[in-house]
Amino acid sequence: MNFSFGKKRIYADWAATTPLRNEVKKAMDKARKVWANPSAIYKEGVEAHKALEKARADGALVLGVKPEEIYFTSGGTEANATIIAGVLNTWLDKGRRDVHVVTSAIEHSSILENLKLFESRGVSVTYVSPDKNGVVQAEDILKAITPATVLVTCMYANNEIGTIQPISKIGSGIRKMRAEKVGKIGQGEVREEISLPVFHTDASQVPLWLSCELEGLRADAMTLDAHKMQGPKGVGALVVRRNILWKPLLIGGGQERGQRSTTESLELITGFTTALAIAQREREQKFKSAEKIQKYFFKKIASEIPKAIINGSLEKRLPNNVNISLPNISDPEMAVLQLDKAGIACSTKSSCLKGEESSYVIKVIALSNENSENNIHWRTKNTLRFTFSPNTNLKDINRIIESLKMLK
Amino acid sequence: MNFSFGKKRIYADWAATTPLRNEVKKAMDKARKVWANPSAIYKEGVEAHKALEKARADGALVLGVKPEEIYFTSGGTEANATIIAGVLNTWLDKGRRDVHVVTSAIEHSSILENLKLFESRGVSVTYVSPDKNGVVQAEDILKAITPATVLVTCMYANNEIGTIQPISKIGSGIRKMRAEKVGKIGQGEVREEISLPVFHTDASQVPLWLSCELEGLRADAMTLDAHKMQGPKGVGALVVRRNILWKPLLIGGGQERGQRSTTESLELITGFTTALAIAQREREQKFKSAEKIQKYFFKKIASEIPKAIINGSLEKRLPNNVNISLPNISDPEMAVLQLDKAGIACSTKSSCLKGEESSYVIKVIALSNENSENNIHWRTKNTLRFTFSPNTNLKDINRIIESLKMLK
Repeated sequence: MNFSFGKKRIYADWAATTPLRNEVKKAMDKARKVWANPSAIYKEGVEAHKALEKARADGALVLGVKPEEIYFTSGGTEANATIIAGVLNTWLDKGRRDVHVVTSAIEHSSILENLKLFESRGVSVTYVSPDKNGVVQAEDILKAITPATVLVTCMYANNEIGTIQPISKIGSGIRKMRAEKVGKIGQGEVREEISLPVFHTDASQVPLWLSCELEGLRADAMTLDAHKMQGPKGVGALVVRRNILWKPLLIGGGQERGQRSTTESLELITGFTTALAIAQREREQKFKSAEKIQKYFFKKIASEIPKAIINGSLEKRLPNNVNISLPNISDPEMAVLQLDKAGIACSTKSSCLKGEESSYVIKVIALSNENSENNIHWRTKNTLRFTFSPNTNLKDINRIIESLKMLK
Repeated sequence: MNFSFGKKRIYADWAATTPLRNEVKKAMDKARKVWANPSAIYKEGVEAHKALEKARADGALVLGVKPEEIYFTSGGTEANATIIAGVLNTWLDKGRRDVHVVTSAIEHSSILENLKLFESRGVSVTYVSPDKNGVVQAEDILKAITPATVLVTCMYANNEIGTIQPISKIGSGIRKMRAEKVGKIGQGEVREEISLPVFHTDASQVPLWLSCELEGLRADAMTLDAHKMQGPKGVGALVVRRNILWKPLLIGGGQERGQRSTTESLELITGFTTALAIAQREREQKFKSAEKIQKYFFKKIASEIPKAIINGSLEKRLPNNVNISLPNISDPEMAVLQLDKAGIACSTKSSCLKGEESSYVIKVIALSNENSENNIHWRTKNTLRFTFSPNTNLKDINRIIESLKMLK
């Protein structure tokens, strides 16, 4: 894709998708040559199986988990659908009538829509609101947990405003609650109860910037998506601790230890693990340089577009995300198109919310703000999201600011 | 992958997976460059969206359907899971208590396991046995339909024995039944009832050899998988007529008209549609040449390995499939490994049944045979499946026969 016509094109929609990295491309092209079915027992099948397990082991090393705790999927959406249906159906099918989930009110739509579906089937869900800065408080999540809670799912970082949630704090709290349960639980009760609630985090937006080691997060399960970290589209992973009970979504074939059937694509899986390894290796350095650009962007907005509201915490935030609401534009999609003409690619909100009128994420945080009455309408409607590349520089930000000032 | 060591390597496991075709590879490499999120509204997003819809239109033309009737998935397994859960949940969620499915007893495990799951949730399923040649009789399927039947699913061709099922005959019968219903249905009843039962066919094994035009098959829905037709792994399609009611399996994002959420991979989808177009364009010519090789293989088995049983009809069969049972081998997996050493890659049964002791497909057809008492054990256990490439020649078959004769 050609981003340059005259002026350099600025692609500032990394939260939507990222370009394939050259090293990932090369690894995929090599893997493409090993094309036999990994379930086959002849030479070529064994070779494919070995390469697959090598890729899995590589990924496991990066995530600090056992190789058999990684289940490759078609992407983040499938991973989210799988853990939700997987845990909830486990308990619903056991005949448990009181099934409860705790989540945040600003999860990605693939989490929220799956939970809504289960609500229609009798599951109850508590949606915990973040504070006015878009940060979910660990205590609020923990307080919402009841004896019926089988699943807690909270995103690692928000896809619209980039706010980072206190995952390890939530995870620690849940572990403490479970430890207390061990003492109380009677002999008659099932041992499996002890691993409840399962704690899952959707980390799709995170690997380029923050550590995704599962143990560090105190999580039981995690969603990852390759195309958000310079890997290919069409592959992601659900990482799940071995002691967790969950039913597979795709069955019939028995691949991925029976938990995700379909002939495995070594090419895609290699793309995933290669991208993950590079992202995690480079994340600290990238975080620091992106953060400088971000701080500059914030400063420029405050000084040159003072009427703009910056949505979400300025500190607990992915370093490449800037999300603003503008009072003076009539239509945010028109604004995106005007910026597009000026050589800047950005978005109004999540690319998975095309067609929606306003952002539910901004609505939730605007409602948490005591002074929100006057601006809630334009603030939720007139949003622009910039999620820039690690190579964005100060000049690019200046150009974005100049273009923003010219918006009508 | 290197198939040649001294002697030419014979890859005879095309039913498990096929090598990526060069034209497909090239089309994918080109598509890979258009990497923006097709939901984005800036230039690069629009470009990706256009390319995606162009690929969809190409696929639609080949299948004789409307572009919006194609839903891209991660493969055949997801497509099968989607149509089963999609149709059954539609009616279960409406509160319908009497929900019935008709299928064949020799479907792929991704159909059978999903149906078993729904049986555990109260759905009733009739498994229609094929005749002793592994061919399902259309009348048997039609007779099994009751007023409660919401779904009929029958594979186009079997993955183990290659037998071709009378899809258009079943489809015609179902349409006739529905037409009769139109006259009878009362005003109080829902109009949607008229489209029941939905008729789905899993055509994963077929595109290289037979026409996949949906209307010619008189089907409402069809499963396709790219990697079975020289396309990439990780992408397939569910084709569904517009008037059919079905709920999506992957939600939250709204891609594929809300019926399959996840950021679309233009690269994989282009791989799918390119492979499909080539397969369907060349199928007749390939069918004829493969059939000659197959007939020669059958003849050689009859004359040189007379104790072998050829499983399944010799006529109503994919032209590249030969499935035999051998009385004189102790372990079919050992046989596969011996053949592997002789430079021949084949399988015992479906690669999606690794670990299973014997083939349920052969069991079903052996049980349909009146003289089966004596040989049912070794016949179901000692199976070898050869599914050869369109380039296999008589010399290759001679080598396979010689190697089979040396098996212990």
